[in-house]
Parts: sequence; structure tokens; C-alpha cells
Amino acid sequence: MVFRVTVNSAWRATRTLCLLVLVSLSVCICVCRAESPPQEEYSAMENIVTEKKAEESHRQDSADLLIFIMLLTLTILTIWLFKHRRFRFLHETGLAMFYGLLVGVVLRYGIHVPRDMGNTTLSCHVNSSPATLLVNVNGKFYEYTLKGEISANEVNDVQDNEMLRKVTFDPEVFFNILLPPIIFHAGYSLKRRHFFRNMGSILAYAFLGTVISCFVIGLLMYGCVMLMKQLGQLGGDFFFTDCLFFGAIVSATDPVTVLAIFNELQVDVDLYALLFGESVLNDAVAVVLSSSIVAYQPQGDNSHTFEGMAMLKSFGIFLGVFSGSFALGVATGVVTALVTKFTKLRDFQLLETALFFLMSWSTFLLAEACGFTGVVAVLFCGITQAHYTFNNLSPESQDRTKQLFELLNFLAENFIFSYMGLTLFTFQNHIFNPMFIVGAFLAVFLGRAANIYPLSFLLNLGRRNKIRSNFQHMMMFAGLRGAMTFALAIRDTATYARQMMFTTTLFVVFFTVWICGGGTTQMLSCQRIRVGVDSDQDNSISIAEGSERRSTKQESAWLFRIWYNFDHNYLKPILTHSGPPLTATLPPCCGPLARFLTSPQAYENECQLKDDDSDLILTDGDINLTYGDITVSTDATGVHTSGGSAFAGAATSDDLDRELTYGDHELVMRGTRLVLPMDDSEPPFTDPHHRLRM
Amino acid sequence: MVFRVTVNSAWRATRTLCLLVLVSLSVCICVCRAESPPQEEYSAMENIVTEKKAEESHRQDSADLLIFIMLLTLTILTIWLFKHRRFRFLHETGLAMFYGLLVGVVLRYGIHVPRDMGNTTLSCHVNSSPATLLVNVNGKFYEYTLKGEISANEVNDVQDNEMLRKVTFDPEVFFNILLPPIIFHAGYSLKRRHFFRNMGSILAYAFLGTVISCFVIGLLMYGCVMLMKQLGQLGGDFFFTDCLFFGAIVSATDPVTVLAIFNELQVDVDLYALLFGESVLNDAVAVVLSSSIVAYQPQGDNSHTFEGMAMLKSFGIFLGVFSGSFALGVATGVVTALVTKFTKLRDFQLLETALFFLMSWSTFLLAEACGFTGVVAVLFCGITQAHYTFNNLSPESQDRTKQLFELLNFLAENFIFSYMGLTLFTFQNHIFNPMFIVGAFLAVFLGRAANIYPLSFLLNLGRRNKIRSNFQHMMMFAGLRGAMTFALAIRDTATYARQMMFTTTLFVVFFTVWICGGGTTQMLSCQRIRVGVDSDQDNSISIAEGSERRSTKQESAWLFRIWYNFDHNYLKPILTHSGPPLTATLPPCCGPLARFLTSPQAYENECQLKDDDSDLILTDGDINLTYGDITVSTDATGVHTSGGSAFAGAATSDDLDRELTYGDHELVMRGTRLVLPMDDSEPPFTDPHHRLRM
Repeated sequence: MVFRVTVNSAWRATRTLCLLVLVSLSVCICVCRAESPPQEEYSAMENIVTEKKAEESHRQDSADLLIFIMLLTLTILTIWLFKHRRFRFLHETGLAMFYGLLVGVVLRYGIHVPRDMGNTTLSCHVNSSPATLLVNVNGKFYEYTLKGEISANEVNDVQDNEMLRKVTFDPEVFFNILLPPIIFHAGYSLKRRHFFRNMGSILAYAFLGTVISCFVIGLLMYGCVMLMKQLGQLGGDFFFTDCLFFGAIVSATDPVTVLAIFNELQVDVDLYALLFGESVLNDAVAVVLSSSIVAYQPQGDNSHTFEGMAMLKSFGIFLGVFSGSFALGVATGVVTALVTKFTKLRDFQLLETALFFLMSWSTFLLAEACGFTGVVAVLFCGITQAHYTFNNLSPESQDRTKQLFELLNFLAENFIFSYMGLTLFTFQNHIFNPMFIVGAFLAVFLGRAANIYPLSFLLNLGRRNKIRSNFQHMMMFAGLRGAMTFALAIRDTATYARQMMFTTTLFVVFFTVWICGGGTTQMLSCQRIRVGVDSDQDNSISIAEGSERRSTKQESAWLFRIWYNFDHNYLKPILTHSGPPLTATLPPCCGPLARFLTSPQAYENECQLKDDDSDLILTDGDINLTYGDITVSTDATGVHTSGGSAFAGAATSDDLDRELTYGDHELVMRGTRLVLPMDDSEPPFTDPHHRLRM
Repeated sequence: MVFRVTVNSAWRATRTLCLLVLVSLSVCICVCRAESPPQEEYSAMENIVTEKKAEESHRQDSADLLIFIMLLTLTILTIWLFKHRRFRFLHETGLAMFYGLLVGVVLRYGIHVPRDMGNTTLSCHVNSSPATLLVNVNGKFYEYTLKGEISANEVNDVQDNEMLRKVTFDPEVFFNILLPPIIFHAGYSLKRRHFFRNMGSILAYAFLGTVISCFVIGLLMYGCVMLMKQLGQLGGDFFFTDCLFFGAIVSATDPVTVLAIFNELQVDVDLYALLFGESVLNDAVAVVLSSSIVAYQPQGDNSHTFEGMAMLKSFGIFLGVFSGSFALGVATGVVTALVTKFTKLRDFQLLETALFFLMSWSTFLLAEACGFTGVVAVLFCGITQAHYTFNNLSPESQDRTKQLFELLNFLAENFIFSYMGLTLFTFQNHIFNPMFIVGAFLAVFLGRAANIYPLSFLLNLGRRNKIRSNFQHMMMFAGLRGAMTFALAIRDTATYARQMMFTTTLFVVFFTVWICGGGTTQMLSCQRIRVGVDSDQDNSISIAEGSERRSTKQESAWLFRIWYNFDHNYLKPILTHSGPPLTATLPPCCGPLARFLTSPQAYENECQLKDDDSDLILTDGDINLTYGDITVSTDATGVHTSGGSAFAGAATSDDLDRELTYGDHELVMRGTRLVLPMDDSEPPFTDPHHRLRM
């Protein structure tokens, strides 16, 4: 009875609180509304007038931001309510969008703040728009900074609703403040084991797939636009480059809703890895691709004709920007790993966490300062940090950094989605064209199909663990669009084409997030995709199914094999405390360097350090690790050493083979003894409880 | 041998790394230097030119911010080194200032970027400086926002170093972004037990003391300024209001260095509480006081004559803004407490932490939007959150929120102090006047003395636990100035007076942080202040010294007593899950409300919930708590119930009395049984190990 009372009172209380929040939201909006400045005494000192204006502007900005904070708070409370009641049809991002929509409606139709006619229009003769303007007002000089261009109709529209302009953010806010934490967190939380196991496929989907999707959508949209022109439905210019640009921005998937549901229901880890990995990387590809398309500038008068040189240049820009951002991101991750390895910062978690945060942030700034793309750099920085630096952190710092970026990601993501909903009503240059929108939906659908199905077919030729057709259908369905697409679309809305694309993008995002996201659970059951899969069981079943699967197709894992050896033998020992020690693996000429770089713990750790999202761990009985003259071999019977083998500590191909199959087998490491669950001859334990866990 | 190798290699590695960071810092500075834009093709489309300008500006901003990030990184590494070597003479803030200074020297004398002569000066005829300017450039409209006023000499100075202007932040950044986390963290981490025990003294120092200090410094500076005028040393106007303003801003103490050392060395908790509490509150007082002084505007032509009405108005503004900010801060804290109490958000730590963060941030925005002072509001919000909301959070969220704000505080504080050092060389309107500076040092010293000594004397008349003279000397010495003083000084540097004050403030901060902060350890031993004090031992000694101390002086704790009863019996049960249940303490007419507000756990918790920085916990044997007809009495022999007493659960004055003395005794709560260490008649255990800890 007490429990029921508690639940009822909690429910009533929650309703009350939600009402309170809605009320306070309205109050805030009224505060913003009543912002007509009070009549101040006219003072002879003009700088006081300037100060007051600045102060009012500041108060208004605070009120605007407050609206968003209240929106987010309301979203959080509702999310809790949904989780409490296990309501899976509306995920947090869809919910945030919905609330944004509500507030947008209120702001648009409920409140009207006439334009402040105190804005003076100067008709001065200047040749270009300088970045800074010094205005001489009766002997005093005032500095003005360029905010942006205003379209002519906005200037003349005296019925303009000032309120709407005020809640509009500078689009660069998304790329400079909101997207970096989201992208970094995505990189930092990549489940590396499954990611690396599916690396080839993920790269294929992310690179080839995004480009395919971009061009397919671009071509289809171009056809649609031509048709619209014929039918007189087109009100302005819309070139092929614009279509390609649309294809690029709308190819960035963001299945955050789907992945959250996958996580909750514990769906197949490979599917999760494919979807997550693809979405993380294709964001990066889409950003750089869209920049390259924008940078397409042929020499002639018409900047929209096809020109080989310009196209090569664009392609070169794509490669250059991507590799540069990649390099910077990885470099910063490497530096952080080295710093955390060689200092005893682990003793001071606050310093360690602060350093980690600053170094990750500096990646972004460095990439932006050098003219590359910050979000791509932070992605690869995140992956590098997760792969190397994470192992060097103290356990508390590992938790702290995870939690910090998880929080930032949560706030930024819900902020963007709220803003998306809001923008549907507050953006004043929408161009709503039903034909274009229908065409876009079709193109997006077909573009996704052209991405998934052909590539899956090709990948399955090489993959050991085929991507089944139900997985393909799920991936097709789970191509939700989100934050990145929106940010890319809103970045520049100066032209007719861009405005139409922006409006259409909003609808695409709304549809995919609400309909596809909401229908995920149904789709899972419809496609008969297993849920509640424990990652270990998954493997035991696949192993039981046949040991012939273990026979490696050399090509499928070749690239990965090379990477794995290099990473295991050189990179990890350099950047973390793991073994094998470099003094053993590097040639003798690099002796002093090897000694400098080798951590004392590397001599003790015959194997890589324990990782929560542990990477592929060598588990196999045939591992031979050599330190100097001693060879340590391990198999199920225990560790035994023998002398003098010259084998220098690299894993054999059979080991790797088995590893790819048994990827999830764990290793127990007690001190420096390796206790291995099995060797090749014995079938693994089928009872998961006997499986030794790390 | 391995250990020595490790230490040596760590030291070498650290040196190498510091060198690397310094090198990269120089590289960054060179990147900024080489920012002369490349010759772009002239395109017919002006918006491309605008975009490129915007892009370059963005790259420059990224590079500038990167300089600061690198500075902070370097600071962190050096802090670690100092901690590693137990070097206590230069604390992190002093170190950050020093590095800022270095970079400032490099930027000022090492790099020269000539002013971009692309800035156009328009001589347009306008009556006032509007907030937004629309400039018509060949048919296109560009929007410019008012950045601020530029003094005439800056305009004409073509040798102006553009680099310096670029690394100068808008002063509002401090109040809107950097100070709130610092102030909130200060409020959130107030050690409430000791704070409340010394509440009267802290309030006296913070309010009366700051006002005294402000006026003493103002008067002394006015005398100094008059003298300077006589000697022809004064180059511009300097009114009494300016002197008072200086007094206000320089009265805000920030003994972060001293407190860090106190913490490390475990100095007397009362001294810590007095110093910390004073510094936290006098920041708030100084902000509002300085705003009130600025708002002093008499009616006549001369805005600097004394006028009673204007002074009353200023005083009214002070009261109004302070109470308004206080109310808003407390209100938001209360709302957060209620939300966390009535929802089961504890099950979802991410949601809980996010909500906590957003609500705390919203305080700031709400206060700013309503025209109050955001930093004062966040202070009281932090205190409220720590006192109530903290108890409702899950243990993980308690840690997460603490760590989050600790990190933000750390980053913001070191950023401000770095910037302080930088500004000494990058600020272009310094007015270095040795006479004023010397006068200021004297005034600050005397102002601090006038604050501490008379008030301590008066307080000691009423305090049971006198503030000893060595404590007073230490408090005198520990009056460091820091972030708040700097932020208030840099907020407005338009006039001659303000510029001179800013330069002087910098020197005051440098001196106090480096000299007084560095000399803290010596001062502690010089004043024979005990270190390594365990808070329990502290009490046992004071108890052993004499039970006559327990006799209460009614006046000294009267205010506190009232507050304590109200808080214990009403506020805590409303806002947290602690008992006694409101159904017992509220009159019967409020029955339904009481039932609604009482948490089920309140019926179980006969006492307040366990707190790490636990508040005064009723520990005494004479507690009678009544639920309905049952009276639960507790004493050292255990819990026993008896029926029918009408005593309604409030603590007796004797209990409170003992509590004030034994403030640090803890209570062990196992389930719902109260196990108390002692009752009044028995002397407490003197062995700290037998003391039951929570």
C-alpha cells in the first residue's frame, strides 16, 4: 500500500512538476515579451545610453538561453517519465524536437515583438563589407563587428517579429560548441572490439556508401528539380552543385535513437557496431564532402558548370582536409597518451581529467586554426584517446572522463534537437515546396538503399560472418538523420536553394526520427532480430555452429592483421604501459630509444592491460613472447618458459585467426600469470558461467 | 634501482614534455603571427569575400583560444610537478599568472602584427550609437553589432599591435562564463557544519567588513588622489565615487591559495571556515556594492557631488539586487530539491546530473534576465543545493556533480589567473602611476586591518570560541585578491580613473597572490597555528578543557538557534527525505499538504540523513521524537519508546547547546536504529578510533 501510495504520489507530483515547468516556461516567454525598454532619463552622457542598450541586449540574451534551458529541463523530466514507464516509442531526441516544436509555435504565433526601429540604416559608400567598422558619432568612436548579411526582404519587413530573430543562433555555434562534444563522445565510446572486427565493412559503408548516397541523391534531386522547373514550381536557382550538396548533407546518418534502443534491448553486437561505426564515420565524411562541394569553383563566369580541374581540386580538398584533420586528431591523442604515460598524473585525478579535457579541446581548435575541420579531428582524437590514453588513466579518471563527455554529449544533443523543433517555426526564410520534399524523401530512401544493399553484397563476398539480409533491412530502416545533417543545412541559408534544402532537411529529420525511430522495436521483431543477446553467448553459438568458419579467408582480415600486429607490438607499448616491451621488439639500434619509451610495467605485463571495452586480447595457447633469451609460452596447462627462441613476440596468423572468431573470449590476468581458458584443440566451454572474465 | 630509474626518467620525461609544450606554444604564436591572409582571387561575388573574412576571423579566434589552452595545459603539468615535489611556495593560481605573464611578454615584444588597415572609418551622421547597424553596401545589406567604444588615441595609433587586441576578451566573458562556475563551486563546497557554526562571524566579516573596507580604502585613496592632484601627478579626473568603487572592488578577497594550503596541512577548521566563508560572501557583497556605486547618479549636472537621494537610491539598489539575487538563487535550489525529491531520477544518474547542472545554470540566466546579479544568485543556489538537493541525489550523482563543478572551477580559475598575467602586457590602456599604486597598497593593508581587528574584537564579546589573535593576524595576512577583483576592474576601463585602477588592481593581485600566498606556510608557523588538526581531536580537546564552556551565551547562538530549529523541523523534511515527518510537526490543518510533502523515508528516518559534510546532527541522548502517540527517546543505552508524550519533535535548547560544542560528533545510523555515542552525563570518548563515524 505504501508502494502504491508512493507511485501514485510520484506520478501526481511529476505531473504537477511538469505543469510547473510549463508554467515557468510561459513566464519566461512573457518576460521576453515584455522587453520593451523602460523610458530612461535622457542623459547627456551617450555612453550610458550605450551601456543600457548593451545591458538590455544582455538581459534578452539571458532570457533566450533560459528558454532553452527550461526546454531541456522539461525534456529531462519527460525522459525520466518515459523510462520509468518503459515507453520506447519516443526517444529523448524525438521528444526534445517535439518540445522545441511546441515552443516554436508559441513564439511564432503567441508572441509578437515588433522590430526595434532604433536600428539605423546607414547608406554609406563602401566598396566591401569590412570585418570591423568604426563609426564616428559626434566625436566618439564606436566599433561594430560584422554579424552577417541580411536579405533585402528582411530589411523591409517592418512587421518582422523581433522575437524570432532573437532566438536564432549563429549557425557556427553548432560547429564550434555543440557538435564537438557529440562527435568526441561518439569516438570515445566506440566499442572497439566490435568496431575493429567489422572495420572493413564500416569503412566501406562510411566512405564508399556516403559518396554513393551523395551522388545518387544528388542525381535524383537534380531530376526532381528539372521536373519542377518544367512545371514552373521552382522559384529560384537550383544548380547541380546544390543538389550534390544536399546529397552530401543528407547522407550523414545519426541513428542515436535506434542505437539507444539496441543498447537497451541488447541487440546483436555486430549490427550495433556496423550501425554505430558507420554513423560516426559518415558524419566526418559528410562534413568534408560538403565542404569540398562548396569549394568547387570553376574558373569561368558560371560557377556551376562542370570543369575537370575544379573537380580535381575539390577532390584534393576532400583528401587534404580529411587527412589533415585525421592526422591532427590522432596526433593530439598520441601526445595525450604520452603525457599520461610518462607523468604520474594518475595520482591527481582532477589534474588528469582537466588535462584530458583540455587536450581534446585543443584538437578542435588546432584543426580549426589550421583550416581543417575540427569535428573530424575530434572524432579521431576521441578514437585514439579511447584506444591508448584511456589505458593510462587512473580508474577514477576513466570514470570521470567518461561521465564528463557523456554529460556534455547528452546536453548538446538534446539542445540541438530542441533547436531543430524550434527552427521549424522561428526560421524566417523557409521555402516549403511539397514537390521537392516528396522528391527528397524518395531520393533519401533510394540513396540509402543504394548505399546498403550493393555494398553489403560486395562485403559479404569477403566477410566470414555475413551480413544477413534482415540486418541489411534494419540498417536500411535505421538510417535516421539528425544533428549533423541539421547543422550542415543551417550553416548557410543565404540562397533560395539553401533555404529550400533547409526546410526539406527539417522534414526529413522529423520523419526519420519520429517514424523510423519510433518504429524500431516493431522493425526488430518484424525482421526477427534477436534481442537480449549476451555477447559471449553470441560467440559460443557461432563457434558451436562449426569450426570450419575458423578457416580464415586471408583477404578478409589481411588489412586488419597488419594493423593488429603493428598496434600490438609497437603502438600500444609506446603509448601505454602494456607489453611486450619495446626493448624486445625494436631492433637493437633503437636500444636507447626503446629503453626510454618502455614503461617498467611493460616488462611485467606480458600481455596488454585489462580494458573494459577490451580490445582483441591474445588468448591463445600458441603465444610465444620473448624477452631477451627467455621465451614464455602459454597454453591451457599454464605458463612455461623455455630458453633461447628468436621468435620476437608477434602473434602467429593462427592466433589472430582464432582471435577473430573468439573475439569475445576474455583473459584473466592475475599479476603476471596468464591464465588462459583454452587452447586450440579443446572446444571452448559452452557454459558462459565457466568462462573466465576479466 | 628500478625506482631511481623510474624517478629519473619521469623527471627527464617531464622536462622534455614541458619543453615540447613550450615549443608548441611558440608554434601556435607563430601560427597567429603568420596570419596575413593569402592573396585570394578577387571574385565578383562579395559574399565570398565576406565569407573568407569571417573564416579568417574564425581561424584567428581558434588560434587565440588555443594559446590559452596550451597555457592551461602547461600550468597543469607544472602543478603536477610541484605537487610531486611538494613545492608549496607557488600555488596553481600564482603559477598560472606567471605563465600568463610570460606569454604576455612574448606577445607584446616578440610579435608585431600591424593593424589591418582594411578597417573602414565611416563618418556618418547619427545621433546615438545604436545596438545594431545595417550598412548598405552596393545594394547588399550587412548587419553590424555594437562591440564597444574605442578611445580616440586607439583609433589614430597606426602602430597598434593587432595581435594584442585579438587576445583581449570581452570583459563580460568573465561574468557570464568564467565566474559563475567558480562561485557556484564555492557555494556548493562550503563545509556546512563549520560554516553554520561560525555563521554570525562570517556574516559580520562579509557584510560589515566589506563595507568598512570599502569606505576606508575609498577615503584613503581619495586622500591619496588629492595629494597626487596637488603634486600634479594626476592626468585626468578621479572622483570620490571612483575611489569608493576602487574600495569596493578591491575588498573582494579570494584566498584560494591560502585555503588550498590550509586544506593540505589540515589547519584549524574554524580558521578555514572563517576565511572561506568570508571570501565566498564578500565576493557577492563586492559585486553588488560596486554596481550600487556605479548606479549612483545625482540629478544635477555634476554627477559626482554628494546627494542624499541618490545615495539612498544606491543603497536601495544594493538591498534590492542582493535580496533579489539571493531569493532567486535559493528558489532555484529549492525547486531542484523538490524535483529530485519527488521523482525517481536517482535511478538515472546521467539525467540527475544533467538536471542539476541545468537548474544551477538557469539560476544565473534567470537572475541576469531579471536584472539582478547572476553570480550572487549562483552562490546562494550553490549553498542551497549543497544543503538540501545534495541529500536527495544518488551517491553516484553526488560524486558526479561534485567532480563536474570541481573541474569547471579548476579550469575557469586558472584561465582567469592566466589571463590576469597576460593582461599586464596585452592591455593597451594601462596607466601606471607609482604613487597611486603605493597609496593603494597602503590603503588595502589598512582597509583589511580595519575590517578584521575591530570586528574580531566585537565578535569576541559574543563568541564562545574566541577568535584568537594569531587567527586574526592570519586572516589579515590571508586577504589575497583574485578573480573577482580582477573581473570587476576589467569590466569597464573606459575612463582614465578606471584604467589607473585596473593597472593598480593587477599589481595588488600579483603581490598578494605571490607574496602573501607564497608566504602562507611561514606565516602559519610564525603565528604558531596548529597544523595536522583532525577535526575530532579538535573538539575533544576543547571539551576536555572545561565543561563550563558548554554554558550557552544565549545571544551568541540565538539567531542560529532559530534558524536551526526551523531548518531541522520544516525545511529539511520538506525538501529532502529526512525526518521528522511533517505530518508530526505541522499543525493538523495542513494535514493533506503535510502528507503530500512527506517522503515515506521520513517516517523511517528519525534523524537527518547521513551527509558527508554533515550538518549539525542531533546526537544527543535527550532527543524525543514523536510520531502520533509514540515517543521515541534515544540515549546511549539504545532506543526505547514510550507512549503518549505530546512533545512534537523539536530539539531542546540543551541539545542545541551541546551540539554547538560537540559539533563534530557523528552519528551512526544502522537502518532505523539510532546508535548514539553518548549522552550528556558521560564524557565523550577521547580516543578518536572509538568514535563512531558516519
